[in-house]
Amino acid sequence: MTTIDDIEAAAERLAGHAVRTPLLHAPLLDALAGRRVFVKAECLQKTGSFKYRGARAAVSSLDAATRARGVLAFSSGNHAQGVALAAQEMGVPAVIVMPSDAPDLKIVNTRAYGAEIVLYDREREDRDAIGEALAEERGLTLIRPFDDARVIAGQGTCGLEIAEQAAEAGIGAADVFVCCGGGGLTSGIALALEARAPRLRVRPVEPEGFDDVARSMAAGRIEKNARATGSICDAILTPAPGKLTFPVMARLCGPAVAVTDDEALRAMAAALIRLKIALEPGGAVALAAALFRAEGDGDVIALTSGGNADPAMLARAVQRGFD
Amino acid sequence: MTTIDDIEAAAERLAGHAVRTPLLHAPLLDALAGRRVFVKAECLQKTGSFKYRGARAAVSSLDAATRARGVLAFSSGNHAQGVALAAQEMGVPAVIVMPSDAPDLKIVNTRAYGAEIVLYDREREDRDAIGEALAEERGLTLIRPFDDARVIAGQGTCGLEIAEQAAEAGIGAADVFVCCGGGGLTSGIALALEARAPRLRVRPVEPEGFDDVARSMAAGRIEKNARATGSICDAILTPAPGKLTFPVMARLCGPAVAVTDDEALRAMAAALIRLKIALEPGGAVALAAALFRAEGDGDVIALTSGGNADPAMLARAVQRGFD
Repeated sequence: MTTIDDIEAAAERLAGHAVRTPLLHAPLLDALAGRRVFVKAECLQKTGSFKYRGARAAVSSLDAATRARGVLAFSSGNHAQGVALAAQEMGVPAVIVMPSDAPDLKIVNTRAYGAEIVLYDREREDRDAIGEALAEERGLTLIRPFDDARVIAGQGTCGLEIAEQAAEAGIGAADVFVCCGGGGLTSGIALALEARAPRLRVRPVEPEGFDDVARSMAAGRIEKNARATGSICDAILTPAPGKLTFPVMARLCGPAVAVTDDEALRAMAAALIRLKIALEPGGAVALAAALFRAEGDGDVIALTSGGNADPAMLARAVQRGFD
Repeated sequence: MTTIDDIEAAAERLAGHAVRTPLLHAPLLDALAGRRVFVKAECLQKTGSFKYRGARAAVSSLDAATRARGVLAFSSGNHAQGVALAAQEMGVPAVIVMPSDAPDLKIVNTRAYGAEIVLYDREREDRDAIGEALAEERGLTLIRPFDDARVIAGQGTCGLEIAEQAAEAGIGAADVFVCCGGGGLTSGIALALEARAPRLRVRPVEPEGFDDVARSMAAGRIEKNARATGSICDAILTPAPGKLTFPVMARLCGPAVAVTDDEALRAMAAALIRLKIALEPGGAVALAAALFRAEGDGDVIALTSGGNADPAMLARAVQRGFD
């Protein structure tokens, strides 16, 4: 079980490596939402997503002999890039198992960070089985994308920053919308805020039709998605919440929200025009919830978790607009 | 003459109001440039450009009776938005004189910040004369876009941050490319770096065909541009450097650089894909110089000064790509 001490320790290991991403705010975005909307722009993190935090936290926790054998990750793209860059920075070999339908940009970038890429079919093959076989065969250490206490601690460092930045901005109580796949970021932030800013309540945000976390929280047990593909939000199409992340979310998070692909595109357009940041669809769902689905008129914080959109997707969002 | 003490005083007045914008860095951008490229992302400043700094510094320096009568600015759009928001935050009436061919987004936004807008024809009318007449008629205080010691001090606060962030990032000597219109930002940063980081050398960057600063520095006296329009870099198509800014640039800056509109578009695309930030053409010329025109292989810093691009211009940049 990840603790606030683990998160603080991860923050020390990340200091000087991870970007302290800004908490952005734009009066004209507030006018659109009818409330104050603050945006933790984690798309400005190294590799374009929060995943670098968990990856660096995990790889930096390994001893020298383990590092020398190398690490392995399976990921639709953002965890892949995070692990690849963290490993490259520390001189550790990395093998990444990626779905063959991942956006080109993510595959090309992962390779550019020096990793070896193994592609698999998301509909027909089991990435866990592929990853575990490779790990055993080569003596690699598997860095799981979310269900790993060290990874959750790394993602939680983002929550420490939110607690500090919200206090500086004079934000009291607020809902914190977080883009949610397997729940590593969501649970890490929830744990950090429980200890450092208990009046900030995390709310998981998912794509419609892929609301495994919402259904799991309602049922009190882990529920799976019926489909593996079918949304533009590729970064967060995870089959189910994790064994470690689910109990944390069930205990600490407020109601989950599901948004449409069109709402994610509109949030991408608003982010480009109002905040001057580029998001990918899966990294925009929390902003979509803050803009289009929040109740009442209180302050909200949206964590924009990733910006690795292909150019065609950025063009589509610009064309869609946010009206 | 603006001094480092004036810049420090402006920084105190801006604390808690202006965003401390991040110094971004992306390994894949370095690979494109063949050197380490750091980007001071001032497009993430309130109102989407650095102009808010100088505007807030100037308006906050006025006494209560002067503020109550109101302020006036003439601007192609970014200074307009900076003055409008700074005035609105402080409860000061604002009248803004804007060219009728300014991008729609800038006119709409300026109005949304509560300012009264007066449009003029850039080719046929003299904005200085219009502004001064209005100021006299209504008792407004004119906030000049660059040739004002208080405005230069405000823009210089960006230089204080660059000095600190460069030290944190381990950057020793480096060229600092700055998007340059009238020279308020360029001279403010040059003064801050002279005092706080003398191994960082500012280099003004202009659009080709609008290289008044380069020609003025070469001639040792203020030279004007032949044309007032004809580049997509609307934010920095200023007729000539200022009486206050030119001597500072002549004394402190390294050689100026001119880039093409196409290079500005490619830099916009690289910023979107590699850094996840949206730039306008005039705010991208410094990054264009860093990526495509820098000599040697040393570290460079590019100040991306604004992000208020119309959606059509963002789409054009995405389509252009950066290869």
